[in-house]
Amino acid sequence: MTAHPNLSHDTIPGASVPAWIAADWGTSQLRLWVMDREDTVIDRITSDRGMSRLSPQDYEPTLLDLLGDHLPTGENSPLPVICCGMAGSRQGWAEAPYASAPCPPPGIAEATQPATKDPRLAVYLLPGIKTTDPADVMRGEETQIAGYLAQDRDPATSQVICLPGTHSKWARLEQGEVTSFSTFMTGELFALLQGQSVLQHCVSEEGWDETAFEQAVREALANPAAIAAQLFRLRADALLSGQSPETGRARLSGLLIGVELAATQDDWSGQHITLLGADQLSRRYETALSTQGCTARRVDAETLTLAGLTAAYDQLKKSQTP
Amino acid sequence: MTAHPNLSHDTIPGASVPAWIAADWGTSQLRLWVMDREDTVIDRITSDRGMSRLSPQDYEPTLLDLLGDHLPTGENSPLPVICCGMAGSRQGWAEAPYASAPCPPPGIAEATQPATKDPRLAVYLLPGIKTTDPADVMRGEETQIAGYLAQDRDPATSQVICLPGTHSKWARLEQGEVTSFSTFMTGELFALLQGQSVLQHCVSEEGWDETAFEQAVREALANPAAIAAQLFRLRADALLSGQSPETGRARLSGLLIGVELAATQDDWSGQHITLLGADQLSRRYETALSTQGCTARRVDAETLTLAGLTAAYDQLKKSQTP
Repeated sequence: MTAHPNLSHDTIPGASVPAWIAADWGTSQLRLWVMDREDTVIDRITSDRGMSRLSPQDYEPTLLDLLGDHLPTGENSPLPVICCGMAGSRQGWAEAPYASAPCPPPGIAEATQPATKDPRLAVYLLPGIKTTDPADVMRGEETQIAGYLAQDRDPATSQVICLPGTHSKWARLEQGEVTSFSTFMTGELFALLQGQSVLQHCVSEEGWDETAFEQAVREALANPAAIAAQLFRLRADALLSGQSPETGRARLSGLLIGVELAATQDDWSGQHITLLGADQLSRRYETALSTQGCTARRVDAETLTLAGLTAAYDQLKKSQTP
Repeated sequence: MTAHPNLSHDTIPGASVPAWIAADWGTSQLRLWVMDREDTVIDRITSDRGMSRLSPQDYEPTLLDLLGDHLPTGENSPLPVICCGMAGSRQGWAEAPYASAPCPPPGIAEATQPATKDPRLAVYLLPGIKTTDPADVMRGEETQIAGYLAQDRDPATSQVICLPGTHSKWARLEQGEVTSFSTFMTGELFALLQGQSVLQHCVSEEGWDETAFEQAVREALANPAAIAAQLFRLRADALLSGQSPETGRARLSGLLIGVELAATQDDWSGQHITLLGADQLSRRYETALSTQGCTARRVDAETLTLAGLTAAYDQLKKSQTP
């Protein structure tokens, strides 16, 4: 059922009583999972009330509004809300200061608890991770990594994971710790160039050309420094040889992902890596890597976010057990 | 005097009778110079009625409106308007098809004459230049190059020129011809990232940090493939070490220009090059090149545009002399 144009509920039939709330509160989107005591998802709520639209005093009313009937009644103890993402940033609800890599993904012990007026809520904001030389930050991805490590068959092994997205991350994991990571503005560059640059008429919003994508990946890897010229060439090819906007779209994606792969070559060349991301974008990275003979395993990011939040809730339960 | 908020006139006192109009009609801006028979500027008019705001039928009324009292009266012959830039593109007033490099900058003989209803106007749209493998186009810069070649003491020499701008161009000139060129989206990337990306709060609209600029140029040249990570680092440095938005601005510029220089290294390394551009941006390229031991000469682009349009008008006069 849809209770609001920008809000969707997927209620699971025969659901039991809410035991806790898992929350991924990002810049533009908020996802809530209403969980029972068996860590089964009772309800899944998505909303566009992300950090960029909220002041600190807006977070609690937003939660109360979206959770509605799921809030405890009577003499119950407060409902724990375990939250990752930008709500814990300095511009968010309350700051959950970054942990410093190398470190394990921060858990409930490092969480910040913002003051709430309503006694039915007990909110925990999980921190992100930073590195200082060179400076880099993640906030939200560390919880996916926590979920990945919780499921990993061999967490002691040194390995590289890539988290494609608006700001894609490449992280090295060792002995259950994030030892280093690097962020690339690849996804945001794609969105800006596709939607707001001179390329907007030669790069479509939909459609695809797999051959052109793979060719563009190879071109960018062969000469990454030429990226600003290769981008303009999308316009010139459209003007001079009628290149379709769908081919333009695939080429733009291939060029930008190709440059990212050129920068991370030491991380994936001759190695097995794991892609933690949404399905479509992860497949593109998988294809791009396959043009270079690299086989990548894909794991669904949303599943891992929920696994990471569940791991944090388990820590909370243990800490509260006498 | 200012006749309109988006229109400025600089009338030169004691001016004589208009003999022709020089026009640089770009995507976002229109510049008109009212010229006398001695090729002296009588009036300079700028307007924001660029191609992006106009349909084909809007161009003639725009000219009539802006030229006003400068239009001939009575039985005079029509006033030639020599025009370079996007007005001659397929989306402009009328298409002036590209000349193919290698070629001299196209002149009056290659110009397209759009039909005009008013007999007081005789409009000539100068073509741009294209290359096909790889595809690239210029429209407007070829007239600056024509002006540069008209002033050049030794046009037979092979040389490289760089035209910094929204879409900066690197062109090789030989025997008065443009033999090859390449376009970089550097300026547009800067504008998008400064104004519309996650970097907008850590990159100021004004201010500068010369040391940070030079350091960023060096970093980008040393590892151009890492550009998408170096961009995100601007945000991380602002978050973690309080890097000022002025330093962020200079670093963003340095990173993007540095990547352009990495791609064009064969063109400038160990050579003398000439920068044709607006003062401030040209100085940045000059500084960036100087970090690599390359000395560049700067020439003002607007002066060259006018010189190129004047050269085309001279050709028109000669063609009309019996």
